[in-house]
Amino acid sequence: MDHALQQARLAAARGEVPVGAVVLDPHGVIIAAAGNQVEADRDASAHAEILALRMAAAQRGTHRLVDCDLVVTLEPCPMCAGAISHFRLRRLIFGAYDPKGGGVEHGPRVFAAPGCLHRPEVIGGVAETEASDLLRQFFRDRR
Amino acid sequence: MDHALQQARLAAARGEVPVGAVVLDPHGVIIAAAGNQVEADRDASAHAEILALRMAAAQRGTHRLVDCDLVVTLEPCPMCAGAISHFRLRRLIFGAYDPKGGGVEHGPRVFAAPGCLHRPEVIGGVAETEASDLLRQFFRDRR
Repeated sequence: MDHALQQARLAAARGEVPVGAVVLDPHGVIIAAAGNQVEADRDASAHAEILALRMAAAQRGTHRLVDCDLVVTLEPCPMCAGAISHFRLRRLIFGAYDPKGGGVEHGPRVFAAPGCLHRPEVIGGVAETEASDLLRQFFRDRR
Repeated sequence: MDHALQQARLAAARGEVPVGAVVLDPHGVIIAAAGNQVEADRDASAHAEILALRMAAAQRGTHRLVDCDLVVTLEPCPMCAGAISHFRLRRLIFGAYDPKGGGVEHGPRVFAAPGCLHRPEVIGGVAETEASDLLRQFFRDRR
């Protein structure tokens, strides 16, 4: 999670909503790391999770990351939760819960919905304070 | 929808699940067109919708496609429905309903879920027969 938080801080420094993500291989080695790049890429799908998953799949040479874990500082939105399912991730570990925009424990609860073909193990609330402080600070500075 | 179906046919010819999508600007001009590229790109997020939306945003120079419409041959999955919301599309027109993998009228019903920040106008079932015949044919040939 430290590495994901570092990616979130780098995103904030670039003026992006501070969310960071890393993908770990089965040995716990980081094979992909990314922060939000929505503004820089002018791409609303350039969330940290999607970027890290695409990077990990490219590194692995396959779009099925069945033995990999994603660590992200914020509860994924419905788009990213759907992507996590498509990439067949083994485990999702996230920091802050997101009652407004989250799609795992909130909103459409993508993994719990009928028709979800792959449900990763989910561990939420890891380093929640640091992750949510980063977001709070970012939005306070912008006001 | 004809252009989206053409993209789906091209995807099938490449061995991809035949789904195609186009983005129209407010004048009805196609500014982006894509078919599924999951296998070719080894990217589980490379659905026709995501590719077309990213292409349209790049063409427009903004990640907010507020006056654009997406036409896609199949009901979007939760990932793509989430992306449609993030890109702030005006209207979603889709072909075949997808009771198993769909995320608009089925499964998590992303636009209807609490917390959904942007709900496009949705028109489903356009050229449904052609779109679903393409998919049926593809999966029959693969068996």
